Amino acid sequence: MDTRPTIAISMGDPLGIGPEVTLKALADASLRGLARFVVHGHNATLTRVAERCGIVPTWFRVRAGSDRALQPLDQDVVVIDHAELEFDASRRASTREGGFASKLWVEDAVTDALRPVGDPRRVDAIVTAPISKESWSMAGYQWPGHTELLAHRCRTRHHCMGFVGERLKVTLATTHIPLMELRDALTIGRIVEPIDLGHRLCRTLGIDRPRIAVCGLNPHAGEGGLFGDEERRLIQPAIDIAVQNGIDARGPFPADTVFIRALKGEFDLVVAMYHDQGLIPVKLTGWEDAVNVTLGLPIVRTSPDHGTAFDIAGKGKADHRSMRAAIDLAIRLAAAPRIPAGPPLQ
Amino acid sequence: MDTRPTIAISMGDPLGIGPEVTLKALADASLRGLARFVVHGHNATLTRVAERCGIVPTWFRVRAGSDRALQPLDQDVVVIDHAELEFDASRRASTREGGFASKLWVEDAVTDALRPVGDPRRVDAIVTAPISKESWSMAGYQWPGHTELLAHRCRTRHHCMGFVGERLKVTLATTHIPLMELRDALTIGRIVEPIDLGHRLCRTLGIDRPRIAVCGLNPHAGEGGLFGDEERRLIQPAIDIAVQNGIDARGPFPADTVFIRALKGEFDLVVAMYHDQGLIPVKLTGWEDAVNVTLGLPIVRTSPDHGTAFDIAGKGKADHRSMRAAIDLAIRLAAAPRIPAGPPLQ
Repeated sequence: MDTRPTIAISMGDPLGIGPEVTLKALADASLRGLARFVVHGHNATLTRVAERCGIVPTWFRVRAGSDRALQPLDQDVVVIDHAELEFDASRRASTREGGFASKLWVEDAVTDALRPVGDPRRVDAIVTAPISKESWSMAGYQWPGHTELLAHRCRTRHHCMGFVGERLKVTLATTHIPLMELRDALTIGRIVEPIDLGHRLCRTLGIDRPRIAVCGLNPHAGEGGLFGDEERRLIQPAIDIAVQNGIDARGPFPADTVFIRALKGEFDLVVAMYHDQGLIPVKLTGWEDAVNVTLGLPIVRTSPDHGTAFDIAGKGKADHRSMRAAIDLAIRLAAAPRIPAGPPLQ
Repeated sequence: MDTRPTIAISMGDPLGIGPEVTLKALADASLRGLARFVVHGHNATLTRVAERCGIVPTWFRVRAGSDRALQPLDQDVVVIDHAELEFDASRRASTREGGFASKLWVEDAVTDALRPVGDPRRVDAIVTAPISKESWSMAGYQWPGHTELLAHRCRTRHHCMGFVGERLKVTLATTHIPLMELRDALTIGRIVEPIDLGHRLCRTLGIDRPRIAVCGLNPHAGEGGLFGDEERRLIQPAIDIAVQNGIDARGPFPADTVFIRALKGEFDLVVAMYHDQGLIPVKLTGWEDAVNVTLGLPIVRTSPDHGTAFDIAGKGKADHRSMRAAIDLAIRLAAAPRIPAGPPLQ
């Protein structure tokens, strides 16, 4: 009996580098030995990319919406093909067509992940290749990104964005909002969440008693109240709640040195208050292998830590290491025993 | 005739690692061949540190306020000694005494730097060892840091904080203010300044036509207005003003990738909008050798890129590489032909 997990991959914006990094990652036969893959995408695009990159097409094509697509898919790699869609591959930019298609593929992957155990089309995890928010916007979808769409589809309010790199693990209290809106967005609960979910992530990855560092918001973590009071008013109470619930959380620490301390082994994960505070160190220390993971969902979801890269798309020179790392992590998380979710910490 | 520049060093908080990194750096005879040094500090503290670290005391002691201190100081290293002060070296923490003394030493160094050319006590640059803002506060001084005190003493309104590392050069539009006060603090003029002053710094360091990258404030530099409007409202106009004045400034770029682009050689300097945005990458890429430099002053001022480190002070294990780099940069900037200051860009 085949005990491999099944991983769904949404191909991303058809005019970006998503199809290329997907195929390059799946070209490794040893990876295909670890899992089965269902790619939601566009066969003609994938075929063109395969030719360009000298990859032998080994996948099994199933037309989306056909009866065949509802039956068990036993091949190593199946492409669920939306053949009716067309894209202008001479344009490498955000388009309405690309937005429509890439949103559809994410939705289909989520649908399969949410199927009940035993359903032949259920998948164990999803990996999402990069989409263009501008394409989504052109197609009429106002989601700021995958994360928000996934949370909506999974009816999850308590979720957060996490990053797993070779050297650094980070979760974020806030993500795609204007920096100056942090004033309203940052609450004690909003900070407890990435501590709690980051702790669960570390446990899932086999760290017995994760040491969690929490960033301050202000320069020097507020320098004892000299530069802002969010540390005292919001961050310290969130840390206290986590500690009361048995989590080894410490801080708030000055953000300009805490990542170095984590790299040196003092902490297993760092909780950042906002996008750039977490992403600058994640990208500086793990450009090639950092993986984005959405925490708190009832499904496993990872993605590479880069965008559509329209400027290099279609040239065969995209680096697929982050996509490969995203697939590896999805397989690992799909196989790990689930940490009981429990109620959100209060 | 001795053509070496004279560098003043303020010893920093007497209970921190300032005295130790100062002596360790000056212990290198080749450095003493490049400049003469006037250390504003405390002889008894320095003597104790020298013993602890096995450094032979080679300096010439002059009592602060004595007639001798007003005459030309020709020795390689002179310590202007405030022997009347006393510190409890068994306590390694912020103290009123440490705050009073370290502030005094900075003031004395600035006084010497501001003396007219020809004055025997004039110095060509100052290097400030770390002080404790809490110590200053305990002594009744409310300056948030060296920079603000220096700007006040030099009567300079147009100044900014810069960092020079082996791999990255950064200037900051804002420094020690609560993050949420950026809303009021960030103006077009406030962003033009670090572009202009960063450009001058690069020219002074011998870069003919510096390529300046400017960070966005919001995630993904606002993603075309989706997450905030400061890029359009403030940052782009500041870049336009710089470009109109002949500066090769580009952006606003997403902050999570612009530093990688600079590290790869695409830019000579990155302008960050706030403290952590600039300091996280500076410290991650140059922990040991990054130097803080105050730009826009009529005097040259550098300092190591670390704090008092009370936790390891007095143990002889402080790393003096950043102090050494700060002294090297001070010597280099003191010797460089000044770029004419010109009026502030409008």
